[in-house]
Amino acid sequence: MTLLEQYTKVRSRTEEICQPLETEDYVPQPVNFVSPPKWHLAHTTWFFESFVLTQFVPNYQVFHDDYSYLFNSYYNTVGKRVMRADRGNITRPSVNNIYEYRQYVDRHMNELLNSSDSGELFEIINLGLNHEQQHQELLLTDIKYILGHNPIFPIYNKDFRSEFDKNKSTNFVDIAEGVYEIGFTGSSFSFDNEYGRHKVYINDFSICEGLVTNREYIEFIEAGGYTNFKYWLDEGWAWVNENKISAPMYWHSIEGQWYFYTMSGLQMVDEDAILTHINYFEAAAYADWKGMRLPTEFEWEVAAEQLNWGQRWEWTNSAYLPYPNFRRPEGAIGEYNGKFMINQMVLRGGSCATSHNHSRKTYRNFFHADERWQFNGIRLIK
Amino acid sequence: MTLLEQYTKVRSRTEEICQPLETEDYVPQPVNFVSPPKWHLAHTTWFFESFVLTQFVPNYQVFHDDYSYLFNSYYNTVGKRVMRADRGNITRPSVNNIYEYRQYVDRHMNELLNSSDSGELFEIINLGLNHEQQHQELLLTDIKYILGHNPIFPIYNKDFRSEFDKNKSTNFVDIAEGVYEIGFTGSSFSFDNEYGRHKVYINDFSICEGLVTNREYIEFIEAGGYTNFKYWLDEGWAWVNENKISAPMYWHSIEGQWYFYTMSGLQMVDEDAILTHINYFEAAAYADWKGMRLPTEFEWEVAAEQLNWGQRWEWTNSAYLPYPNFRRPEGAIGEYNGKFMINQMVLRGGSCATSHNHSRKTYRNFFHADERWQFNGIRLIK
Amino acid sequence: MTLLEQYTKVRSRTEEICQPLETEDYVPQPVNFVSPPKWHLAHTTWFFESFVLTQFVPNYQVFHDDYSYLFNSYYNTVGKRVMRADRGNITRPSVNNIYEYRQYVDRHMNELLNSSDSGELFEIINLGLNHEQQHQELLLTDIKYILGHNPIFPIYNKDFRSEFDKNKSTNFVDIAEGVYEIGFTGSSFSFDNEYGRHKVYINDFSICEGLVTNREYIEFIEAGGYTNFKYWLDEGWAWVNENKISAPMYWHSIEGQWYFYTMSGLQMVDEDAILTHINYFEAAAYADWKGMRLPTEFEWEVAAEQLNWGQRWEWTNSAYLPYPNFRRPEGAIGEYNGKFMINQMVLRGGSCATSHNHSRKTYRNFFHADERWQFNGIRLIK
Amino acid sequence: MTLLEQYTKVRSRTEEICQPLETEDYVPQPVNFVSPPKWHLAHTTWFFESFVLTQFVPNYQVFHDDYSYLFNSYYNTVGKRVMRADRGNITRPSVNNIYEYRQYVDRHMNELLNSSDSGELFEIINLGLNHEQQHQELLLTDIKYILGHNPIFPIYNKDFRSEFDKNKSTNFVDIAEGVYEIGFTGSSFSFDNEYGRHKVYINDFSICEGLVTNREYIEFIEAGGYTNFKYWLDEGWAWVNENKISAPMYWHSIEGQWYFYTMSGLQMVDEDAILTHINYFEAAAYADWKGMRLPTEFEWEVAAEQLNWGQRWEWTNSAYLPYPNFRRPEGAIGEYNGKFMINQMVLRGGSCATSHNHSRKTYRNFFHADERWQFNGIRLIK
Repeated sequence: MTLLEQYTKVRSRTEEICQPLETEDYVPQPVNFVSPPKWHLAHTTWFFESFVLTQFVPNYQVFHDDYSYLFNSYYNTVGKRVMRADRGNITRPSVNNIYEYRQYVDRHMNELLNSSDSGELFEIINLGLNHEQQHQELLLTDIKYILGHNPIFPIYNKDFRSEFDKNKSTNFVDIAEGVYEIGFTGSSFSFDNEYGRHKVYINDFSICEGLVTNREYIEFIEAGGYTNFKYWLDEGWAWVNENKISAPMYWHSIEGQWYFYTMSGLQMVDEDAILTHINYFEAAAYADWKGMRLPTEFEWEVAAEQLNWGQRWEWTNSAYLPYPNFRRPEGAIGEYNGKFMINQMVLRGGSCATSHNHSRKTYRNFFHADERWQFNGIRLIK
Repeated sequence: MTLLEQYTKVRSRTEEICQPLETEDYVPQPVNFVSPPKWHLAHTTWFFESFVLTQFVPNYQVFHDDYSYLFNSYYNTVGKRVMRADRGNITRPSVNNIYEYRQYVDRHMNELLNSSDSGELFEIINLGLNHEQQHQELLLTDIKYILGHNPIFPIYNKDFRSEFDKNKSTNFVDIAEGVYEIGFTGSSFSFDNEYGRHKVYINDFSICEGLVTNREYIEFIEAGGYTNFKYWLDEGWAWVNENKISAPMYWHSIEGQWYFYTMSGLQMVDEDAILTHINYFEAAAYADWKGMRLPTEFEWEVAAEQLNWGQRWEWTNSAYLPYPNFRRPEGAIGEYNGKFMINQMVLRGGSCATSHNHSRKTYRNFFHADERWQFNGIRLIK
Repeated sequence: MTLLEQYTKVRSRTEEICQPLETEDYVPQPVNFVSPPKWHLAHTTWFFESFVLTQFVPNYQVFHDDYSYLFNSYYNTVGKRVMRADRGNITRPSVNNIYEYRQYVDRHMNELLNSSDSGELFEIINLGLNHEQQHQELLLTDIKYILGHNPIFPIYNKDFRSEFDKNKSTNFVDIAEGVYEIGFTGSSFSFDNEYGRHKVYINDFSICEGLVTNREYIEFIEAGGYTNFKYWLDEGWAWVNENKISAPMYWHSIEGQWYFYTMSGLQMVDEDAILTHINYFEAAAYADWKGMRLPTEFEWEVAAEQLNWGQRWEWTNSAYLPYPNFRRPEGAIGEYNGKFMINQMVLRGGSCATSHNHSRKTYRNFFHADERWQFNGIRLIK
Repeated sequence: MTLLEQYTKVRSRTEEICQPLETEDYVPQPVNFVSPPKWHLAHTTWFFESFVLTQFVPNYQVFHDDYSYLFNSYYNTVGKRVMRADRGNITRPSVNNIYEYRQYVDRHMNELLNSSDSGELFEIINLGLNHEQQHQELLLTDIKYILGHNPIFPIYNKDFRSEFDKNKSTNFVDIAEGVYEIGFTGSSFSFDNEYGRHKVYINDFSICEGLVTNREYIEFIEAGGYTNFKYWLDEGWAWVNENKISAPMYWHSIEGQWYFYTMSGLQMVDEDAILTHINYFEAAAYADWKGMRLPTEFEWEVAAEQLNWGQRWEWTNSAYLPYPNFRRPEGAIGEYNGKFMINQMVLRGGSCATSHNHSRKTYRNFFHADERWQFNGIRLIK
């Protein structure tokens, strides 16, 4: 596939995700960590306008002077940005304006990619496409959040059935003690946080091929998992009590039966399906109750080829920290990953919302310990 | 005008107010005291469905089972309601659905009003129309809030020029000491908080025929009004400092010139125009600086016929409390006014956003001392 | 009594109130509206140092340079002050230092009052003594708050039995419609908020000679008073639910019996005793449930001589606002009352904690609608 | 030293630390993470009463029934506890009562240790002594916080001069790549979080023998370190801006000169002294500005014997997580360390406030990234 073909494919996929939405669904930001779908559409476009077109196209006219200010996410280098918590109140530019913005930028990107030797552009465009793929996953989880917190539970797509994926194995695989190499190697794309392949020493461990199911997690709930402090980290126990948590996100107990909100609407919980929408606190508490533990990201990476994975992002017991010799790149791109390396936990794998070809075994995803709106899951080690 | 004609006129006016909006503008609730335009459209409709159609039309089918839950505002009697702060995140039902809801209810109201002797319905429908007129004013001020906090300052209607209304008089009128009667009298509509005409004793006072202008208020600003505690109520001074306030709402100082956001976009402040968007704290501080004071609501009502009024809601120095012999009506209607009689100040008059025929000299409007998104103004007494 | 004798008497009374305290009890500020006893002792002394000694004694040396900064309460005119919420963390100067400060100021006040013709000093010293008497009441209620929120419920003084005062009458007195005069008259002391005797028009009313008892309030509780929104102001209902309120402050239900914390320790509720520690929201809800209402401060003042009063501060249905012609005095003294005239309700009467000779029928006490740590009570009108 | 001698020595040291305090200083809890000195004295005593005397002394009578409830810190296993934020408002039991409590428990501990073969008691008593030594350090830093936030800056002890300790070396030591063993080994005391000696793979690194000085940090400040986002983690940058931070804790700029509050009062900053009272965000930003980085806790432990250390707790770039095979012990002791293994960073070394013989090279101290009231410092790696 040419770079232009890849560009076209990724950009189309973003719009395809939004196809089932009503105009109104593009607008709100119900909580700080969720962004309006409208904003995702514009922000990913701003990336190409800002880091490609204005850099490499002589006399390029930006689509609108205010958009850089409105749709920059967190790049302090590039200037002032709309405070994150206010994104849901910015009704203009309209959704139609944003689609026009996308078309305008896509047309100029087409011209650029048709005319130029894309050699020097490859790296930044490839980063832009991987960036957009990350936002595709957030688009899906943010849409789920917006619709799933509406008391009338609208359906996104009745054929989206990934929340019902079944676990494929309960076997444990043994991995032998020794020095292993960790981190990305090869010539294809990876993020800067994966660079710097390096050695780690790993002890013997035994890791489950499959993920925890709803049935297993219901056993934890029924055994009083949410009411006994001893399974919980101290901050986790505070989180349970302050928020009166007694089940995964999107679960509702209706007349003694567990239901959960899925992309295909409110459904009965399928006990054979893989558990999702639990946070690190819940994953760690479940593992403790089970007498097991979560893998570190290094154990995970070493075992990865022998595991089933790709259905849920799997919480590891590793904090998100730099690899040896990690260095933030200069400029705005340097703000991509490094500055988030505090108070977050690494997740490995990928999920039903992850874009095709976007995940790989060295990929380091990361979220705060209390976040559960992603399609997260649990894998155990004993 | 027949009741049906009145009904049709009021209902059309609501939709006319929304005509300049984009679909996106109907959705957000940027702060607690602002409601989404979509919600106003539905809530005023729910009033007629809930208090008229389901009561008086045999076998009436509600438009949608969930709407009562979604669009009840604060009537605890009628059942659970969506938490006020969440209104901006409820993207469905869509704006189109809401307009269908309005048409459905209007069609049934038409049938009812054509068929029945509207005698027994008159009172509740008239309340519903006055209720909708109150929401028309809130619609305008809430739309102004939503657009006026957008960094690109969209124009609502370039012909809406009421923020430029001029003051007509600076004369003071003398009113003689004595016993006066206060409260509504007559057979036309009034709210329950105006009932119970009663006597009050009033001392001599002298009241200005006109309202404070931008020019006069700029003098206060330039004299250090916002930086000298001695003009301020203690809670007002805390409000100034916590929120770093130095001018009325919607004012922006750009290269030494005052601009303000109006319904016709960002404009230079016209010094001859009547000041607006100040709260009670600011009104009281201005009056103190000027060596004057605000009228009580009783002084205002006694003098009303000799004043120019109708351009701004005028802060009085009266707390919103019941008149002697006020009694909350039974049932949901009883929640209309009485339960808000604490920690709010009375405003009298009416504004450029007040619906035609809706204001009268006994009308008691009320807001919290820190609120300034209404078209409020200042009248002085000496 | 000479002014010096009055001075000595009031100042001694303050220290007598603190006599049962341990050193530790003088320190904390458990909530914003409670001040440390240590602070009350110093602040009342600072008043005399700041407004008398430094003004009228040539070459007077202040006791300590930092004390003006530390013990100013809210007089912006006099300079920076310690943020209110931090008072409980200022362990030095020690309690002993504060008592030395009191002795130092008292010695200089003695000299001044012995030497001078106190004519020109009378007004400010008299204000200082009334100010100290106000703080004596706060000292008692703040001490009750500190000890009453300690899980081991320490006894302040086992002979302090005012919480067990009985109601003396359930008769209602009729007052006739007409013009009455309100406000202080005479030559003795009153605060500026009582000045400006003026006429008000009052309708017929009938007021109870006595106050609501615990027995009557328990009937309200048992009738579901705290769980039925219809008796409550909207802000009151929010307060009940956010704070999970189901009884007056200091009440504890232990094995089906009501206990309450009193100055003489944890005791069974005496049903014949006068109810106390309810806020305005509760007073208004109780009155509504009873089918009656609270008096306005004007009705109260007109009826005062025919009432039993002096055991509880009685919530009125009047907001704390200026009388006609009220003007803030110039300078720091002007901050005494006027700047608090917003969002507070007037209480009339006096309580078991009010200093001897301090209350009078024109006295306007005021607190926020949600405050209940004072010895408040309920009187009804029908 | 016998166990009794060790016991006596540690217990005396705690009271010695409190010797310079006034009674008032024992009471407040100015922020959540600081505990009242009174509470530390009681809580360390409660440990011995609860885990030793009530377990091993037949018919032991607890000193007071309520103390277990009042002075349990975070052991959910042992029962209800006073909410952490309320500790500063519990004025009774008094400081004298707490000292009586200490004497009572010490007397019984003496009897027990004299009478019994302390073999089975050794482990729990030794844990209790190490626990008390941890609280000795917190006592000092909490006292510093209480006195250092008093606007009159009281002196704790004019001979306490550790904040003026000088840096001894600026040399860098090279450590060779390879597999190293990490974790405690030996028969003396260590905490459970140090157990489980295990192998780690470490790359070449070069580490400074000494710590960063005030002079070096002032260079960072003067180079705009606090105003340039690019050196900061994202959460660190938010912390700087929300709290308007521009220097280490306790630093004050007075007429162009840096002063800082020390245990010996307010003093000019000594530029040669070792920097302290910076948090992880500041340590990481400084290292980034310098073009270097912080050590991991593993690098630190491997290099420890070649470093000067013991003057400041040194922030590492390691999150506080379990070693391989770490398991929480059963019961209350199991709550000691494991449940805090989230969102905290490891510090290594020890400080001027660390009790004698308490630190060791495998010791894992831990605090949140925004905390700076400990005697923390910075060591660099290149």
